[in-house]
Amino acid sequence: MAEHQHLRVERTDDVVRITMDRAERRNSLSGEHLAELLTAFREIAASDAVGVVLAGEGPVFCAGHDFADVAARDLEGVRELLTLCTDLMRAIESVPQVVIARVHGLATAAGCQLVASCDLAVAAEEAAFALPGGKGGWFCHTPAVPVARSIGRKRLMELALTGDAVDARTAERWGLVNRVVPAAELDEAVADLLGRATRGSRAGKALGKQTIYAQLDRPEADAYAIALEVMAAASQTDAAREGMAAFLEKRPAVWTD
Amino acid sequence: MAEHQHLRVERTDDVVRITMDRAERRNSLSGEHLAELLTAFREIAASDAVGVVLAGEGPVFCAGHDFADVAARDLEGVRELLTLCTDLMRAIESVPQVVIARVHGLATAAGCQLVASCDLAVAAEEAAFALPGGKGGWFCHTPAVPVARSIGRKRLMELALTGDAVDARTAERWGLVNRVVPAAELDEAVADLLGRATRGSRAGKALGKQTIYAQLDRPEADAYAIALEVMAAASQTDAAREGMAAFLEKRPAVWTD
Amino acid sequence: MAEHQHLRVERTDDVVRITMDRAERRNSLSGEHLAELLTAFREIAASDAVGVVLAGEGPVFCAGHDFADVAARDLEGVRELLTLCTDLMRAIESVPQVVIARVHGLATAAGCQLVASCDLAVAAEEAAFALPGGKGGWFCHTPAVPVARSIGRKRLMELALTGDAVDARTAERWGLVNRVVPAAELDEAVADLLGRATRGSRAGKALGKQTIYAQLDRPEADAYAIALEVMAAASQTDAAREGMAAFLEKRPAVWTD
Repeated sequence: MAEHQHLRVERTDDVVRITMDRAERRNSLSGEHLAELLTAFREIAASDAVGVVLAGEGPVFCAGHDFADVAARDLEGVRELLTLCTDLMRAIESVPQVVIARVHGLATAAGCQLVASCDLAVAAEEAAFALPGGKGGWFCHTPAVPVARSIGRKRLMELALTGDAVDARTAERWGLVNRVVPAAELDEAVADLLGRATRGSRAGKALGKQTIYAQLDRPEADAYAIALEVMAAASQTDAAREGMAAFLEKRPAVWTD
Repeated sequence: MAEHQHLRVERTDDVVRITMDRAERRNSLSGEHLAELLTAFREIAASDAVGVVLAGEGPVFCAGHDFADVAARDLEGVRELLTLCTDLMRAIESVPQVVIARVHGLATAAGCQLVASCDLAVAAEEAAFALPGGKGGWFCHTPAVPVARSIGRKRLMELALTGDAVDARTAERWGLVNRVVPAAELDEAVADLLGRATRGSRAGKALGKQTIYAQLDRPEADAYAIALEVMAAASQTDAAREGMAAFLEKRPAVWTD
Repeated sequence: MAEHQHLRVERTDDVVRITMDRAERRNSLSGEHLAELLTAFREIAASDAVGVVLAGEGPVFCAGHDFADVAARDLEGVRELLTLCTDLMRAIESVPQVVIARVHGLATAAGCQLVASCDLAVAAEEAAFALPGGKGGWFCHTPAVPVARSIGRKRLMELALTGDAVDARTAERWGLVNRVVPAAELDEAVADLLGRATRGSRAGKALGKQTIYAQLDRPEADAYAIALEVMAAASQTDAAREGMAAFLEKRPAVWTD
């Protein structure tokens, strides 16, 4: 594994926890921080881990881009930064592992985008979510992309245009996070949901996750064309054969991939 | 009407009730069962019925594919089965009748897909919904297509990745079903909602339903291009003329088609 | 500003209030009324206003198309009317101002479409929402376009097929409106939400709003391609530079555009 300056990457059994460890900068996403996150996700993608927890150190989950970094860049420099950021967000969707956000505090701008881009998210009651570009200045154009795909249109507009934060219960009601729990129960709730989401065949789950993102925002006929071919092919895999055999023989399944 | 081995198809007035009648196999969707359902929907499509209730006999609404059937098939055989299944789901969307799911119990995998594919759904409090491929084995790739279009992205991921069931109240909160009622009131609630959804001109309602599916998951400009032309053409039909005349003359409308 | 027969257009500071003032026809959208609304939004688009409140006089917010006008038109005439109506709905999305619906009463058909097309909406507890073409007659094909993009699929089908109204609390739960308040607090709630949604740089906010509509219902890769280029370009504007500088210098921002 690469050495990281802004992250802690720790593996326990089949799960890797990435902790953004730049509390003094509110875990803001400088170019270096983004590059480390992307490297970490790419290394994990090539490993046999089955799940990833994305967490943050300090009082804030992630404050979005680091304005000290952005302000120093010209147009081409900002394009590079945003391309790196978009590559990270899409990597989270494309890695074979299930990725869950552990949101203990404020998640703003690209930090809110991280939460929207993870497959699953559990938040502490103290967490809050904002697209603060709406208060003026640099509008949260790219964070609005996955947030728009997680919550309704009127709610997206309120978040994006006002820049004000919504609390964790509202985020759950809107569908931006799966669960809200007291902070003391956050790790347990993350482990429980991730454990249920990663059981079974690693290969089958990875294909499942990736196919969902491939079909998600296409016209239904196109989505079916993709999902049907994948599901037919998947029926011939060891995982599917074993799952069906175990069901028919009323015994627990044994996964080998 | 065709003879059916796995279904009961009964017409009362303008409404046809299809009851999946394979309780000993939890109404699972073998190739034969799927073919009968597709035949039934196609026959109803050509009839003058205005509504369809899709129900299930026995303790379970529908348990999805029949693994005894799937496990015996090679790749081409599974492609045929999934093509038949997809044809059924899309037929439910394309028939001119309003189709409502009467979900009295568990709806899993392609059974959950059936609920998502119906125009409307009413569930008993005992009902539950799952994409159990998430527990391992054969992932629910095609069921995730209409479910993704009914509920939010994080909730879809939770259903699809964990394989665990959510209860009827949660399904209603997420938008997968329209109503949840005590089991004793299920038939009455289904009849009430379907009655309100089928009144008026049969031809006008059919065009309305079909146009919604045509525009639903396209970019808004494309959606308007479709809906505008249909609505202009529809304005010249007897149904629209009668509806407007009745409104302007403050009298009840009389539908002739 | 153009003279209007069916509207009142009043500017206070940076906000324009358009009041549909055709209470005797329940603010129904005759061709003339639509043309006046479109003219008003186009004039406001070219002004330096930052926000628009769309309100209605009388007991009803807006009753949709004026059947007395529609019934007198042939196919080409109705096409012209619906093209005008669609142009208005899309103008509300494309004007640089934030547009908020102030819904004090019933909003039906194209009136419900107006609410769905506004960026934000606040409703009084007495408000209600319907696509009454579902009761028979002229189906609400084009109103279903933006409503489908604001609420879930099953809920859209219920609204569109039954034609029955849902109350304001249900509309908030479904995501069709942002807030529901007692009628006496409606103006205050509209002003509060609009004030928060319009602060900051006018140019930056306009670009933000317009880019969201450009990316909203495209596949995510396309959406990112749009949003990334806009956000990179926006980083070099005075508004973004000032926003970041103010943040880094811990001082209030001063917007000049």
